[in-house]
Amino acid sequence: MKSPGGMLLASIELDRTGSVPLYRQLYLQIRQQILAGHLHGGMRLPSTRTLCAELGLSRITILNAFDQLTAEGFLEPRPGAGTFVCAEWGVRDAAADEPRKAPRLSNLSQSVLSLRSDHFSGISYAAWEPGCPTSFLPSHAAYDAFPLPIWKRLMSRHLRQPTKDMLSYGELKGQRALREAIAEYLYDARGIHCSAQQVVIVSGAQQAFNLLGMLLLDPQDSVWMEDPGHIAARIAFQAQGSRIVPLRIDEEGIDVQQGLRECPGARLAFTTPSRQHPLGTTMSYARRLELIEWAGRNLGWIIEDDCDSEFRYQGRPQPALYAMDQWSRVVYVGTFSKVLFPSLRLGYVILPEALVEPFCAMRAVMDRSPATLLQAVTADFMREGHFLGHIRRMRALYQARQHCLLETLQKRLGHFIRVQPVDAGMHLIGWMPPELNDAAIAQGLASQQIYTYALSDYCIQRYLPPGLLIGFAGTPEEQAVDKVEALAQGLISMGYRL
Amino acid sequence: MKSPGGMLLASIELDRTGSVPLYRQLYLQIRQQILAGHLHGGMRLPSTRTLCAELGLSRITILNAFDQLTAEGFLEPRPGAGTFVCAEWGVRDAAADEPRKAPRLSNLSQSVLSLRSDHFSGISYAAWEPGCPTSFLPSHAAYDAFPLPIWKRLMSRHLRQPTKDMLSYGELKGQRALREAIAEYLYDARGIHCSAQQVVIVSGAQQAFNLLGMLLLDPQDSVWMEDPGHIAARIAFQAQGSRIVPLRIDEEGIDVQQGLRECPGARLAFTTPSRQHPLGTTMSYARRLELIEWAGRNLGWIIEDDCDSEFRYQGRPQPALYAMDQWSRVVYVGTFSKVLFPSLRLGYVILPEALVEPFCAMRAVMDRSPATLLQAVTADFMREGHFLGHIRRMRALYQARQHCLLETLQKRLGHFIRVQPVDAGMHLIGWMPPELNDAAIAQGLASQQIYTYALSDYCIQRYLPPGLLIGFAGTPEEQAVDKVEALAQGLISMGYRL
Repeated sequence: MKSPGGMLLASIELDRTGSVPLYRQLYLQIRQQILAGHLHGGMRLPSTRTLCAELGLSRITILNAFDQLTAEGFLEPRPGAGTFVCAEWGVRDAAADEPRKAPRLSNLSQSVLSLRSDHFSGISYAAWEPGCPTSFLPSHAAYDAFPLPIWKRLMSRHLRQPTKDMLSYGELKGQRALREAIAEYLYDARGIHCSAQQVVIVSGAQQAFNLLGMLLLDPQDSVWMEDPGHIAARIAFQAQGSRIVPLRIDEEGIDVQQGLRECPGARLAFTTPSRQHPLGTTMSYARRLELIEWAGRNLGWIIEDDCDSEFRYQGRPQPALYAMDQWSRVVYVGTFSKVLFPSLRLGYVILPEALVEPFCAMRAVMDRSPATLLQAVTADFMREGHFLGHIRRMRALYQARQHCLLETLQKRLGHFIRVQPVDAGMHLIGWMPPELNDAAIAQGLASQQIYTYALSDYCIQRYLPPGLLIGFAGTPEEQAVDKVEALAQGLISMGYRL
Repeated sequence: MKSPGGMLLASIELDRTGSVPLYRQLYLQIRQQILAGHLHGGMRLPSTRTLCAELGLSRITILNAFDQLTAEGFLEPRPGAGTFVCAEWGVRDAAADEPRKAPRLSNLSQSVLSLRSDHFSGISYAAWEPGCPTSFLPSHAAYDAFPLPIWKRLMSRHLRQPTKDMLSYGELKGQRALREAIAEYLYDARGIHCSAQQVVIVSGAQQAFNLLGMLLLDPQDSVWMEDPGHIAARIAFQAQGSRIVPLRIDEEGIDVQQGLRECPGARLAFTTPSRQHPLGTTMSYARRLELIEWAGRNLGWIIEDDCDSEFRYQGRPQPALYAMDQWSRVVYVGTFSKVLFPSLRLGYVILPEALVEPFCAMRAVMDRSPATLLQAVTADFMREGHFLGHIRRMRALYQARQHCLLETLQKRLGHFIRVQPVDAGMHLIGWMPPELNDAAIAQGLASQQIYTYALSDYCIQRYLPPGLLIGFAGTPEEQAVDKVEALAQGLISMGYRL
């Protein structure tokens, strides 16, 4: 409970050895608090009795201070009720008196501010509020289908006894059991041969991109980025001052030949080979060899964001770049945000041997390893087979949800939005007539609490028609008709004729 | 389970439309895997039957590929047992063939690597391993006294039903209930008047320092740092390329006059006023006013790391700098690592209004908000009164532990290590004879699994006698004699005469 007394008492400090009389010190400090707006009009001060006891002052000292404050119009005694701050002091914001001017920030901060507003034009912070519907946000999983009872049971197991293992600072690289479980999973599922020593746990793919940008990039270094491509990764590298080289996506994935023509000396290539983000293309085997060869010959690095490799509905998954790389130039990044849930905040990086120590040093400086409890539960979830089972179930569920949402969209909006099934991932692209502005549409829909992302936000050099990213994983089949109807009504209310 | 078959199958990719015969493609890819060390000597390949089924190839295609690999010495068929990779391929590290040279890293990374090895001379990663004793590490709480049953009950409450609230991406600033609980707590306990809008949840004080360094500092900016002072904060600011201005600590805290003489135009001052880290001094009221006046007049920023304000054993706490600041120049940083437990990975920043949006933009780019579940449980723990109760209990417990460890140290080691009681915090300083090297002693002890920190690691310009930071919070009274005896034996085994 907010008691002005508690605040007043906590902030008063008396110097009993100095030359300033105690009543004067008390007077000055209460006055300062009123001027600063911390004590405001109408607040009742603690009783003199309380002040005597808490501050170790005589009653006469306090009355002397109060008398002067009353004489100067700061306080008013109300007989029988106590002493109050005069109403004229209002409820003021301490800073309101000063001229408002922008604070002096770092250049990095200013560039991050402008990068964000450039890139996230259609997306507001509000879309992350807990009460807001996820509607068609691409990266939202089927929360309704997560096996919380199992999760809770595994968690309880680790919460039996307070132990150093669970409560203390965790290992720098992350919990060993989790790193081992990840190494095993990647071996079987992605053909990746690595030891637990090469696995470092992070708080998600985004932290991984930032740490890797700091590790590998100097200002003015060039980075091959897919266009359209991953927004957060791009900002992470731009924040390091690097120069983005946008490479087009064709049906085989990132255009390596374009990169070789335009900037063969790039220091880094960022790619999403399993399911190109956001278009959904799978990188061909030939293209993978080309990319690895570039890195090997030019001592470039490759960051492989293996997003959504778990959710593949057609065809066998391609081997990871990491698994094909004989030159130790590939860093593999994975996340549990989609395959488990986003607020778990766990992801991982698989590093070539030579990068393990420098990455760990950067990691140790920037942040410590995520909460051990969540790492331990995730490790158990993997080791006890729940993880593979959950992936299998979600793959079937998402495939069914995709099918249903696709049909519903085609039926209701087919002549406005063109959709095709995707082989992998959690979203469709809804292509729109070329004269439309997808960012404006996404923003207009968001103002009606219908959330999608605009494809143009992902583009660096525009060469694509407008489109919306429409997530299907979070739309149960029985809700598809209603949600698509809400989308249609949203578009109609913005003046589009469907 | 690691099955070479799973790996082999996951990484083989056949192009059925190309001109290269399928047997040749299979041959080339298995060969590549052996050369790269992914398939090594003695591994059994999947049966031809499995390969036929999984790859959709005829048996003759597979046998053709195997025959050629056998002829070239890559494979050997063992009748009745299957086909194996020839033993001569050994268990090889793929990278072992290449000349080992240091990878090309960013300048930032190289500087971080050297900063760390400069500053953490006495501390190794091993001290964070779960199995290692915490012995006298200063920042380790009384894990044995944490009320896990309450924690577990609050956690279970949030794990009943899968909901978007708990599983989805959280709010950018952190969970609202937690931010409100923090604002209320700081109002009552620290006289801080702020709204939940000014509170941003981070993954600990360290992440806060890094984000604030990125927000506020450009390369070559000067930063006032306490000397001795906080190591991780110093590295965070140095990583931004800033110039450290070390200010001495006297009995009133950081020497502001020295700062005004040597570098009045510093952009930032970092300070630990409640309990100077690591010396334990409380900053005087006069010194607080001086520091705030410097910031107000020079548009400098102050980062107030209010570490251990909860654990004060003598005297009333001083008001926070944030509460005294009329100029909106103070950023307040708090953490739950000590008052709850470190692996919770939750801390918070209280920002002046003008910094809220830029800080959030930086935060959104670098990392998302920590796990919602842990934030929600912490909020409940605070709102339901467990937090204040826990602080009260720990304060009494730590005071008793301090008293006991102090007496035990004085009795057993009093003529070698000089210790005095501290008014606040979780560690004592064990002062040693001036001719000794505290970093070498801390390292020697660590090699015997007795962990302390060397005071010199915290010093920038050396002007202090050698000392060890000796944590008492993690030492129950009944263990004090044994632990101090182990410390004494450790010193004796290093040749010191006690």
